[in-house]
Amino acid sequence: MDFCIQAFQIPRSIVSKGNLDSMSVLESFLIPKINFIDIPSGTDFNGWTVPNEWNLVSASLVSPNGEELIDLELSNLYVVVGSQSIDAIFELQELLSHIHTRSDLPTAIPYVTSYYSKTWGVCLPYSVVETLEAGDYRVRISTTSPPGVMRLGEIFIPGREDTEVFFSTYFCHPQMANNELSGPAVWMSLVNSLWKKSLRNELRYSYRFYIGPETIGAIHYLSLRRTEISKSIVAGYVLTCVGVDSDLVFMPSRYGMTLADRVAELALLNYEFKRSDFLKRGSDERQWCSPAINWPVCSVMTNKYHDYPEYHTSLDDLGFISEAGLSKSIKFYSEIIYILERNRIYINNNVGEPKLDSLGLYPNINKDGNTSHLEARNILNILNMLDGKTDTIQICKSLSLNFQEVESLLGRLHAAGVITL
Amino acid sequence: MDFCIQAFQIPRSIVSKGNLDSMSVLESFLIPKINFIDIPSGTDFNGWTVPNEWNLVSASLVSPNGEELIDLELSNLYVVVGSQSIDAIFELQELLSHIHTRSDLPTAIPYVTSYYSKTWGVCLPYSVVETLEAGDYRVRISTTSPPGVMRLGEIFIPGREDTEVFFSTYFCHPQMANNELSGPAVWMSLVNSLWKKSLRNELRYSYRFYIGPETIGAIHYLSLRRTEISKSIVAGYVLTCVGVDSDLVFMPSRYGMTLADRVAELALLNYEFKRSDFLKRGSDERQWCSPAINWPVCSVMTNKYHDYPEYHTSLDDLGFISEAGLSKSIKFYSEIIYILERNRIYINNNVGEPKLDSLGLYPNINKDGNTSHLEARNILNILNMLDGKTDTIQICKSLSLNFQEVESLLGRLHAAGVITL
Amino acid sequence: MDFCIQAFQIPRSIVSKGNLDSMSVLESFLIPKINFIDIPSGTDFNGWTVPNEWNLVSASLVSPNGEELIDLELSNLYVVVGSQSIDAIFELQELLSHIHTRSDLPTAIPYVTSYYSKTWGVCLPYSVVETLEAGDYRVRISTTSPPGVMRLGEIFIPGREDTEVFFSTYFCHPQMANNELSGPAVWMSLVNSLWKKSLRNELRYSYRFYIGPETIGAIHYLSLRRTEISKSIVAGYVLTCVGVDSDLVFMPSRYGMTLADRVAELALLNYEFKRSDFLKRGSDERQWCSPAINWPVCSVMTNKYHDYPEYHTSLDDLGFISEAGLSKSIKFYSEIIYILERNRIYINNNVGEPKLDSLGLYPNINKDGNTSHLEARNILNILNMLDGKTDTIQICKSLSLNFQEVESLLGRLHAAGVITL
Repeated sequence: MDFCIQAFQIPRSIVSKGNLDSMSVLESFLIPKINFIDIPSGTDFNGWTVPNEWNLVSASLVSPNGEELIDLELSNLYVVVGSQSIDAIFELQELLSHIHTRSDLPTAIPYVTSYYSKTWGVCLPYSVVETLEAGDYRVRISTTSPPGVMRLGEIFIPGREDTEVFFSTYFCHPQMANNELSGPAVWMSLVNSLWKKSLRNELRYSYRFYIGPETIGAIHYLSLRRTEISKSIVAGYVLTCVGVDSDLVFMPSRYGMTLADRVAELALLNYEFKRSDFLKRGSDERQWCSPAINWPVCSVMTNKYHDYPEYHTSLDDLGFISEAGLSKSIKFYSEIIYILERNRIYINNNVGEPKLDSLGLYPNINKDGNTSHLEARNILNILNMLDGKTDTIQICKSLSLNFQEVESLLGRLHAAGVITL
Repeated sequence: MDFCIQAFQIPRSIVSKGNLDSMSVLESFLIPKINFIDIPSGTDFNGWTVPNEWNLVSASLVSPNGEELIDLELSNLYVVVGSQSIDAIFELQELLSHIHTRSDLPTAIPYVTSYYSKTWGVCLPYSVVETLEAGDYRVRISTTSPPGVMRLGEIFIPGREDTEVFFSTYFCHPQMANNELSGPAVWMSLVNSLWKKSLRNELRYSYRFYIGPETIGAIHYLSLRRTEISKSIVAGYVLTCVGVDSDLVFMPSRYGMTLADRVAELALLNYEFKRSDFLKRGSDERQWCSPAINWPVCSVMTNKYHDYPEYHTSLDDLGFISEAGLSKSIKFYSEIIYILERNRIYINNNVGEPKLDSLGLYPNINKDGNTSHLEARNILNILNMLDGKTDTIQICKSLSLNFQEVESLLGRLHAAGVITL
Repeated sequence: MDFCIQAFQIPRSIVSKGNLDSMSVLESFLIPKINFIDIPSGTDFNGWTVPNEWNLVSASLVSPNGEELIDLELSNLYVVVGSQSIDAIFELQELLSHIHTRSDLPTAIPYVTSYYSKTWGVCLPYSVVETLEAGDYRVRISTTSPPGVMRLGEIFIPGREDTEVFFSTYFCHPQMANNELSGPAVWMSLVNSLWKKSLRNELRYSYRFYIGPETIGAIHYLSLRRTEISKSIVAGYVLTCVGVDSDLVFMPSRYGMTLADRVAELALLNYEFKRSDFLKRGSDERQWCSPAINWPVCSVMTNKYHDYPEYHTSLDDLGFISEAGLSKSIKFYSEIIYILERNRIYINNNVGEPKLDSLGLYPNINKDGNTSHLEARNILNILNMLDGKTDTIQICKSLSLNFQEVESLLGRLHAAGVITL
């Protein structure tokens, strides 16, 4: 939450000084070093040209009666991101064609961008626009657009295996909390805890963390890393909208059924959640799951972009997210990692059932109603599933048992030499 | 409908002068040349021996009080098709064993055939038979059975590709309209319109049209063409019972799921229809879908053989079908052809999403509630499905979009160079 | 039932003189010779060491007022199977820790075993234990444990093909009827009837019958025969709990869908039955269906072990089973064998439909309402399914026809040369 507070008012876009500042704030919270990849303005990949910086210097909109309608101290959202500089006077009617509001949320300043066309615009609460009177309005917007760099960040945390788990989040929305800062906040927390485990050699998988502007950042990252990551990725998750203490929302991968989905679905059994449809996707899984990439990436959110009313407005602020919401997401993704790390395919090569009682895994006295039989029955059912194709997740699902219980029984069977990896 | 009127009273069977006459009427309505295949009586294939002609010369059944019960001017159906000549007097009781009626349809003359055994019979309305009095009846039936030919008709309309679409119908029932002439009428209409398109080089697929007696004709046609057609067929349809303005009936192919079925099922989404069961098949799909042939052939009817009461009786007459019914079927099969011709498998090989706004395919201003987003979302979802395995039909189904909308978006994406074939 | 009566009071365990005596009783009812496999005490396979004999010589438990609480003439179940010898006096409280009862069945003596740990115990009706008064109880149990042999029995009945059908049952519970003797009784009946058929060369498959102590016997049998049987088994059934005249219970194989399951499911269509879950398995399918063996073995019972209240108590006695129950199971498994023996994959290689009327398989007169059409329709539908992948069982299921009807039609088509094997 400290990070969210520090970064909230920094004006971010795709390329801007605000982005560099935000990355510095993020860096200050990280234990391991973050690797920055700076891509200069003008660099093109498949039509996605990195734009110049867009920095908002000042903005003013004065009504006929002299009232100032823009307060950048209050919110960066007053000016359409990407606006050009302007200093002009407009009749109300002409002005209105450059003003964006949300009539369904009268007090909200909407978040509007126009990255790829030359225009200008102002975003105001509907309640304000409604009361504007006829007359001359003076608009003064000052922006600068020098060449700069689009900064991506990457952290690689090595595990015992080369195969890797991928976590992505993004930095590009000015002054929003759930749909901007909650992702980096959870991301950073996972980075720091996995880093400690890596130092203690406790990680099976390697972990790769990526952050950059949504869409264009992800596509340029793919231009650099897709071959390498495609070879080693086993599962990935997009961290977005993870800051509210609410029921969870599951966004599956392209066709579902990847390891990433299966782990998420098992972890979700302990939570209230809704399943979304991949057709409703909206963050960087759009890139990771594009058909030529097709990574096993899905996403679990606390409340989904597009679906909560405060989305993309000034109401998505620091009061909208909470410590409890962030913690819930950190806990959930830690469970994801727990399952990923411990999921195994054991093989039971015994001719018939192994002799479990002499291994202390089966009751010695055999009589009906013996409640210790339930565990013995679970063990026998688990053993029957270990045909070299069935992983721990599948066992949990088939037997309606929780992961830790199955993992613990598998560990005991493995330790007793009854099953092999 | 003109064709149906001209052909209605011509006495057809498997082999007869009436069949040759009917083929001539058909020929007179066709723009392209029809290729006739004449198979002489006695020609055997797998037990199916082409019979001699069966021509009905005259028929009379006079009651004890001198009343004539048969009027061939009114209907060919009075005499069992395949009857031998006879001139004899019978007591009522003996006569009745040779009379066929339909007690459930008292005014109908049933259609009865006995192609492959030597007998004679008369078909009368139940309402007439009910009133017959005891006494002597004189039966005079005169038929001739000289050797002749079973005439099949075939038209091949070339397209840009060698792969072909197959349409079959049949000619063998005397004086019935829906279950006889509606099929050839629609068939002829499709022939003529596709022929014009072929001349303008507008056809992707080649089209093969076949007509002949049901069952034995189809089997002899298979004996001649199965190897050739099996190599090139992509989809086929049996045109039968397509003359009534009613809800449609879908008869799937052997196991369903062929391209023919998938196209038909997509087109049917715009119609009220019932799905029949392949086990209830009854026309030449019995041959095209036999296991050693297994062509991708299905059928869409306006009302299904066996299932409408007038089927195989004199009530299936020119008043039973209609211009509107025939037109509905012609329109439906034209939609089938439209979908077949334009169904494609495009590939999206872009790394991540392509840049659509600079191609005019995506809104420049990005704000919520922007209704132009719906199209953009459809485009992105379509792009995500183009993995080289998914055709236009599947996209329509997955996204619940209509074919023309998807085809149009795909065309724009293809024209913009964003996707490839 | 005679066999059950003769064998009921013989004290069986895993290894005991009672087992040898029981095998002799069984042998006396068999027409073919049974092959005995004797595995000496101490023989180990994968941790499963054949124990010494356990023979109960005498047992007495005298209450403070001199009452004898054990009557071995009445039941072998009074003493925990595997008990050591003891002669001692206990206070009631200490005694109770060695007494087993079933409070839910107050009059029942429970069946308790302790094969693999050194202890002793007495099983009494709860109604008796409830009334025991404080004071000194004298327990005297005399058992012997000399080395002996675990006897397995095997009968191989040759058929025309080397592939084999496997039937297993078990011998190891003292004095229980449904969950012990019903299995061997049905087993023996099937052996005798198949043997007669084998002598007349009427069997297609070979049949292998196995009997031995549950679990340890099956595992040692696998140690000897698994390679041989794995090569030739096409289907197998565990005969257990088959003595009661009740609805049937189906226990599928490991993943279901084997030939054994498919045959059983077809036969069950003529019976009231419940489907159990493989996770609830409890007899030697635990071994035959272990992942490294994975034989196609399932089981159909009259009432399932664990699920009927009398299970594993003295109430599972000769009055619990019946001649009608045993006969029902014999009839059911005879139907299984009937289907297995006659199930075939025919191929219809005809181009289109074969000419059935000249083969007497189709009505000569073709008119609607002709009820002989139903058979003709079935024939045509069967012919359409004969693509070289579809067996008789699948045809029955797809067309909702019974096995004998389909088999008969297939036989006629085959005799007529229309289809081939």
